[in-house]
Amino acid sequence: MTPRTPKIPYGGDYNPEQWPQDVWDEDHRLFTRAGIDTLTVGVFTWSLTQPAEDTYDFTLLDRILDRAAAENRRVCLATGTAALPPWLAHQYPEVNRTDFEGRRHRYGQRHNFCPSSPAYRRLSTAIAAHLAERYAQHPALLAWHINNEYGGACYCELCAEAFRDWLRRKYVTLDALNDAWWTAFWSHRYTDWDQIEPPNALTEHWRGPDHTAFQGHTLDYFRFTTDALLGCFLAEKEAIRRYDTDTPVTTNFMGMFRPLDYHRWAPHLDFASWDSYPPLDAPPTWPALAHDLMRGLKGGAPFWLMEQTPSTTACRDVNPLRRPGELRLATFQAVAHGADAALYFQMRASRGACEKYHGAVIGHAGRDDTRVFREVAHLGAELAALGDATLGARTPARTAVLFDWDSWWALEISDGPSRLVKYQEVVHAYYRAAREAGADVDVIPQTADLTAYDVVLAPVLHMVKGDLATRLEAVADRGGTVLTTFLSGRVDEHDRAFLTDVPGPLAPLTGVRVDEWDARAPEFVQHIPELGAQARLVFEIVLPQGAEPVATYGDDFYAGTPAVTRHAFGEGEGWYVATALDQPGVDQVVRRVLDRHGLLGPYAGHPTVETATRVAPDGTRLLFLLNHAGKPAHLTAHATATDLLTGKETEAGDPLTLDPLGVAVLRLQERRQ
Amino acid sequence: MTPRTPKIPYGGDYNPEQWPQDVWDEDHRLFTRAGIDTLTVGVFTWSLTQPAEDTYDFTLLDRILDRAAAENRRVCLATGTAALPPWLAHQYPEVNRTDFEGRRHRYGQRHNFCPSSPAYRRLSTAIAAHLAERYAQHPALLAWHINNEYGGACYCELCAEAFRDWLRRKYVTLDALNDAWWTAFWSHRYTDWDQIEPPNALTEHWRGPDHTAFQGHTLDYFRFTTDALLGCFLAEKEAIRRYDTDTPVTTNFMGMFRPLDYHRWAPHLDFASWDSYPPLDAPPTWPALAHDLMRGLKGGAPFWLMEQTPSTTACRDVNPLRRPGELRLATFQAVAHGADAALYFQMRASRGACEKYHGAVIGHAGRDDTRVFREVAHLGAELAALGDATLGARTPARTAVLFDWDSWWALEISDGPSRLVKYQEVVHAYYRAAREAGADVDVIPQTADLTAYDVVLAPVLHMVKGDLATRLEAVADRGGTVLTTFLSGRVDEHDRAFLTDVPGPLAPLTGVRVDEWDARAPEFVQHIPELGAQARLVFEIVLPQGAEPVATYGDDFYAGTPAVTRHAFGEGEGWYVATALDQPGVDQVVRRVLDRHGLLGPYAGHPTVETATRVAPDGTRLLFLLNHAGKPAHLTAHATATDLLTGKETEAGDPLTLDPLGVAVLRLQERRQ
Amino acid sequence: MTPRTPKIPYGGDYNPEQWPQDVWDEDHRLFTRAGIDTLTVGVFTWSLTQPAEDTYDFTLLDRILDRAAAENRRVCLATGTAALPPWLAHQYPEVNRTDFEGRRHRYGQRHNFCPSSPAYRRLSTAIAAHLAERYAQHPALLAWHINNEYGGACYCELCAEAFRDWLRRKYVTLDALNDAWWTAFWSHRYTDWDQIEPPNALTEHWRGPDHTAFQGHTLDYFRFTTDALLGCFLAEKEAIRRYDTDTPVTTNFMGMFRPLDYHRWAPHLDFASWDSYPPLDAPPTWPALAHDLMRGLKGGAPFWLMEQTPSTTACRDVNPLRRPGELRLATFQAVAHGADAALYFQMRASRGACEKYHGAVIGHAGRDDTRVFREVAHLGAELAALGDATLGARTPARTAVLFDWDSWWALEISDGPSRLVKYQEVVHAYYRAAREAGADVDVIPQTADLTAYDVVLAPVLHMVKGDLATRLEAVADRGGTVLTTFLSGRVDEHDRAFLTDVPGPLAPLTGVRVDEWDARAPEFVQHIPELGAQARLVFEIVLPQGAEPVATYGDDFYAGTPAVTRHAFGEGEGWYVATALDQPGVDQVVRRVLDRHGLLGPYAGHPTVETATRVAPDGTRLLFLLNHAGKPAHLTAHATATDLLTGKETEAGDPLTLDPLGVAVLRLQERRQ
Repeated sequence: MTPRTPKIPYGGDYNPEQWPQDVWDEDHRLFTRAGIDTLTVGVFTWSLTQPAEDTYDFTLLDRILDRAAAENRRVCLATGTAALPPWLAHQYPEVNRTDFEGRRHRYGQRHNFCPSSPAYRRLSTAIAAHLAERYAQHPALLAWHINNEYGGACYCELCAEAFRDWLRRKYVTLDALNDAWWTAFWSHRYTDWDQIEPPNALTEHWRGPDHTAFQGHTLDYFRFTTDALLGCFLAEKEAIRRYDTDTPVTTNFMGMFRPLDYHRWAPHLDFASWDSYPPLDAPPTWPALAHDLMRGLKGGAPFWLMEQTPSTTACRDVNPLRRPGELRLATFQAVAHGADAALYFQMRASRGACEKYHGAVIGHAGRDDTRVFREVAHLGAELAALGDATLGARTPARTAVLFDWDSWWALEISDGPSRLVKYQEVVHAYYRAAREAGADVDVIPQTADLTAYDVVLAPVLHMVKGDLATRLEAVADRGGTVLTTFLSGRVDEHDRAFLTDVPGPLAPLTGVRVDEWDARAPEFVQHIPELGAQARLVFEIVLPQGAEPVATYGDDFYAGTPAVTRHAFGEGEGWYVATALDQPGVDQVVRRVLDRHGLLGPYAGHPTVETATRVAPDGTRLLFLLNHAGKPAHLTAHATATDLLTGKETEAGDPLTLDPLGVAVLRLQERRQ
Repeated sequence: MTPRTPKIPYGGDYNPEQWPQDVWDEDHRLFTRAGIDTLTVGVFTWSLTQPAEDTYDFTLLDRILDRAAAENRRVCLATGTAALPPWLAHQYPEVNRTDFEGRRHRYGQRHNFCPSSPAYRRLSTAIAAHLAERYAQHPALLAWHINNEYGGACYCELCAEAFRDWLRRKYVTLDALNDAWWTAFWSHRYTDWDQIEPPNALTEHWRGPDHTAFQGHTLDYFRFTTDALLGCFLAEKEAIRRYDTDTPVTTNFMGMFRPLDYHRWAPHLDFASWDSYPPLDAPPTWPALAHDLMRGLKGGAPFWLMEQTPSTTACRDVNPLRRPGELRLATFQAVAHGADAALYFQMRASRGACEKYHGAVIGHAGRDDTRVFREVAHLGAELAALGDATLGARTPARTAVLFDWDSWWALEISDGPSRLVKYQEVVHAYYRAAREAGADVDVIPQTADLTAYDVVLAPVLHMVKGDLATRLEAVADRGGTVLTTFLSGRVDEHDRAFLTDVPGPLAPLTGVRVDEWDARAPEFVQHIPELGAQARLVFEIVLPQGAEPVATYGDDFYAGTPAVTRHAFGEGEGWYVATALDQPGVDQVVRRVLDRHGLLGPYAGHPTVETATRVAPDGTRLLFLLNHAGKPAHLTAHATATDLLTGKETEAGDPLTLDPLGVAVLRLQERRQ
Repeated sequence: MTPRTPKIPYGGDYNPEQWPQDVWDEDHRLFTRAGIDTLTVGVFTWSLTQPAEDTYDFTLLDRILDRAAAENRRVCLATGTAALPPWLAHQYPEVNRTDFEGRRHRYGQRHNFCPSSPAYRRLSTAIAAHLAERYAQHPALLAWHINNEYGGACYCELCAEAFRDWLRRKYVTLDALNDAWWTAFWSHRYTDWDQIEPPNALTEHWRGPDHTAFQGHTLDYFRFTTDALLGCFLAEKEAIRRYDTDTPVTTNFMGMFRPLDYHRWAPHLDFASWDSYPPLDAPPTWPALAHDLMRGLKGGAPFWLMEQTPSTTACRDVNPLRRPGELRLATFQAVAHGADAALYFQMRASRGACEKYHGAVIGHAGRDDTRVFREVAHLGAELAALGDATLGARTPARTAVLFDWDSWWALEISDGPSRLVKYQEVVHAYYRAAREAGADVDVIPQTADLTAYDVVLAPVLHMVKGDLATRLEAVADRGGTVLTTFLSGRVDEHDRAFLTDVPGPLAPLTGVRVDEWDARAPEFVQHIPELGAQARLVFEIVLPQGAEPVATYGDDFYAGTPAVTRHAFGEGEGWYVATALDQPGVDQVVRRVLDRHGLLGPYAGHPTVETATRVAPDGTRLLFLLNHAGKPAHLTAHATATDLLTGKETEAGDPLTLDPLGVAVLRLQERRQ
């Protein structure tokens, strides 16, 4: 239920409440010039719309929405509950979060409310209800945007109580909880629910949030926090639905954001949306992975790109500038991966405070002759020309990557074997290999239906829950390939080790047994001769139980033992990669797997050219070609197609050149069978 | 109103209260031997002179001052209020500071009183008054030394209240405050003064004191802290003045000390004094910059070097030894830059506690045959021989460097573009370039009268306040040169961006416009071909608006655009340096600027030889030559002069050799016109 | 009074309370197979044996001990008081420790009780008494194991009170305390005991536990903490002795563990025991030093190796695997240094919580065909074959290394000259040099009787107390050699500098005087030409007062002055090493010293071969040969001997080959005279 629009909504965060009204005229003049039709409004207006507990004042917001409507722009209306008004924090100190160190904060910043606070719940739903009542029928209203970038945990007494309630509902008995958390270890057997504390720096943790004495306890607090914040979202959504039964509701996610398990949230959003700020120097597959993860939240339905910077960030130690063409390339990459909107943070640069140097469509001088404004306006024109061609299109992936917050958490809060293995990095390495080989990839939760996939990649699947192992076996059984890696199949849903050979429930499928594993400092390199690759960090020693070696370790006392194995299972195969291969190593393994299923893309030999397919609701097949290099890419067209951006037609076999950072959106003439 | 003395006062911190009285005899024997005539006394005696709230006991202090007088030594008498007695902290817990993390401390260390504490105010002024009453007429008294190395902030409820009062006085209305702090951002509109919290780790900050959500708020707390501590100083000074109307009063500053804006303090001191502990491996221009900054506090009047170590520090991770000759060189450097006193911390090494390994004139064994004692005594003899030749002399600088705490703070608490740009480092690079080119330099506040200067260097002048831009334009108008750099002219006094082209009010003078800027990791290097130099960290993209390029970027998409520009303005020029040039790059730019005004020094070609000029009250011109190299410097005398240290005369054109680490104090025969 | 056993006890920590009883059968089957005869039980059972304050339940523990007895295994029974039950922490919040930051913790982790808590004292002694009453006569009982790895400080109000009492007892008067702590510095003169606070982040410290304003104050808190935890141990021991007058009592130490001065504890243990987890990449002499330190606790009596991992640790960032043979080598190294037991943590891997990946004899899959199990079982058989041959044997060392917690603390909390000098590293360098030269070494407290030693090495003996200097002089007087180093002889027992030439009381013996010292960053290297060695960090400038130079500094202004000296004293010598030599430098110095006394070992030329001698109670001389290299070591036998592990005899002069990581335990035929 993504909002219906005639074209890709284009625009973003707009805060006219920071400016005198004469600036508004200039804003709209520039919006028109840049093709901006959609404005995210109200994210930080709570202190204006409710200047005191018993006073609401929508004068300004009325004018903002009325003006938008008058200008034929649509509004994504935020409830604004992520940034408390000072009076609220002052009047209800309990609404301020208690941090991991056990310190109750006082008023400041944003994203800092206690999710268990009754005052917050009452007042946030009240403002949401007021907004819905007032604007449900407003012609500018396109979507609801609840809160903003939910995240962060609270450790106050209210949360402690709420956590205990959550545990009571989950475990029913203390015996069940003691068993799940394995409290016989270190004499932790609880005899009363009230003895249970939030796990933080004053209780079970040391050296920060990832070092805990009881992983099961900490995992449950992560899950509780996810649910507690989700509760806030749901309460606001319910308040909105009292007055507006059909406008789509979302909240803006943050891609691979560890604190919240978005898979638990996904069913409750009408459509997914997210803010893309990839790390410095990240390869293009990093944001791509996040896009695909977000698309996977709603079973492949298009999502909104709710925020990206038109030029620079501000909050990092070093904030590089998006170079000419990079914004356009990143935007089309988002569309290629399923975005049905392209929005910025922000329309006009704040004059003061910590985001004043954050990039904006309109800078402090208000010019329309800056490079950035020109690029934004050019892109606006291109998106207008594209019309509805991509809207509602879906990705026909036959390759899946499993992405699982529980495994992420369990891996990174584990003591041993190595604190240096990072979930995202390993997952990204496999995702990247598949994407650079030209495969369309769905990034899916471990509960997803796997029947559509020929290849399922499940790197560092540390935790295996429910019937997942059986469903993975079914993929192989019917001829598919499943790949998993070191540190997979280790623990159950409570982070208890499986009392069987490693990799636990994945052992039958992979045909291996692992009794021991070495971990080493990052300077230590193992050579994998068959791949000409290097491996680092963790080296599991594999005893094949039916699997055949694909590659072996070159060094140390386990030299010659398998580093990568393949196991015939049913009609298909189960692969196991026992160590952290470097990217060339992962690439080779993944390409062998994809090749078995004919999933290498037509341009797999061009490392800088990304391809992505979307199939429009009418069956039209669109192929996005994205050149991430600063040099032209010279391809040979693999099919007959029309570039929707230029109108140019290409026959199969024709030369096809992409400009530096260039993009083509090819409408394929013939369907691939 | 520097104290009147017949020669440079020589001596320093003396703590006989730590020792039995038989040690005192030995102390004075050694003082005589070393030419020590001035003792800083009472810095840490509060717990002795007031052993309980209602008990004062000056027996010991009487003996210390009487003995000094008997030995013909003078005393710089401290009020000692920087180190609380235990009973005070125990009896009035509110006097202990609450730190940035919101934690009320308990008794310990020093420099740890809450500046808003009524108990502290009452008791610190009482002890100051008692001291003044008792010693105002004492023959040994030479100067008052209030407190010690003021610094550090408190975040307690008393300070919160005091801060709100300070804000009320500054802004009068909450509307004005909301506008100044730009509180529409992140829904921070305050509706009651009581909602305002001190900005710290529990409110607006994260990742420490430099990361704040609201720069305007944090800046005001920096200013409030400056004023709150100044209030403590003023209260003590007033107490002293009740009994002693004319002895000069100072407090010892710490050079480039970020927490306090010394320019706000300067008018209230009778004379400036400071403690010089340059960082490890700092070039000689680093302490020189601090000396000149301190001299600039009182409009160029001489200051006191209140502390330096005769040999080593103790508090650093690594405390290197001053090598033979380094102490003498550093001392004459201080004198060359305006010091009219040369004092040490400390006379005799403490037997216990954290400074027992800090260097001292007299070590634990009490010897007079150590290398350090011999160097101290030799220097004492030289200063005695120098007599009053340098006292009261002033520096005839035609070059100024603007130094502005507000810009320092604003730059370093800013989110974006780069956390890696450090105010002191950039200012030092320009200062160093001018000094090494032989120019005498005044380091002045942005409010200073600029009419005396041919060249004004204003690096990273992030904040531009009041009529500064106009006054800078006036410098150029009358033929002078003004130079400013990247990240200048960005914000007003409230840290709000100027709503005009960058560099804001400096744009007319510099003739440039900057729409965008790149920031990169320190590994990234831009080449500046015209200068053969490198640039790093921040790269502003300059659109000349009348300025001509002096040097350009060599790389990236902005290759060929200007990195350094010069703009004809009135009779003079406005220069703009758009990036962080390395030292050779800065040197070339600054030398070009200085050369235009004939300000390159006669020994500018000798990189290790520092020169500095002072003009005595009778018009005698003194040229200090300081050889910072471990090898002799072979110069050709540029003028006829007599070296006051050796009595040797040199004719212009004669060879003039400086020993390794050698010093000459030349009385020039002819005035330079 | 080490427990009497017929062979080396073999086994370790066993937690059957974590498992259903059917697992117990499997456990014992595997124990038998691995030769495991000794089980450490009860370390974490408090929450089971006392599920509520008024309820004790020993059902499970009965079964564990009865089963052990039935299987002919012995039990080391823990009182389990290191891990609180949740109800206790919940009911008595004061029992939770207040950390260095002044934060009272809440329930979590282990090793976290306040040692001054009356509730803890009452309840911990009660459980100990109950256990002793119940199991004193149990046939399985072999030893008592009180608490577990004591350590860590508390800073609560109860501890503050207890600290003040401890100070009153030590100093009697505040004058004495003020003098000891040198409180005249920084105005700290205390006038009431209640003004004294625990030294922590809220009082005298900054930048953590090693940065204090008052070293004397902090040192006393370290000593108080040692005594406070010792008080907990003694109270439990007394409770046990009420019911069991003769079973030996221990607690497991942690080798070179800075927080506790084990020399203060040693008299109160019946035998010493410790847990060996050497740092990553530590050379073999690192654990050897710890073994010898532990052996030195009880005057050379054998100790127990209470814990080591059979394979990996879990709590480190990187947890490498013990390679094949390493476990056996480390175990025989322990025996070679005096261990009369070889125990593991742990028998069976925990299923959950933070040690689930810690190595274990039995892994999660319960297999007996893993490499690790096989190695454990093989070693079990070897130890069985060895029988009682090594039990009760003692080390006939003629070389001693002084190890002094007070010097360790004083050195590392000192401000100046260098924070980079680490006590353990310097001590280890000298220990290593002696051990690699083949000398048996006792590591002894500074109060130990020195008459047995020809060579006494006293590196970084920062603090010199009592009559130590006289006793060291006596060693030299009778012909022995004493060596000390830079930063020795600096302070008295209160950390007050000696008011004489450095090295204070050691000056007569060493014949040197040190007036000044340089400290430099680690990149700075001094060359010591006579040794072909390098020196770093600290460079004392030595003025010989009778000593002759052995080696000199090669660089800087003190080039040519002595870096190493030798002083004829009585019949012997006093050596002084004025700088931190690298290992080759230390090796040369120490070998020269040892050679003078004929103490170089027969295999001193084989750097990877460690030798260690033990003399059995019947006078049999055992020589352990340990090859730490991955290659065979080819030696020539220096004596006729029988290898107790293989039964093979070797004549003097025969070739003697050690396998890679190989071990020989030679029973020498002829006694060395």
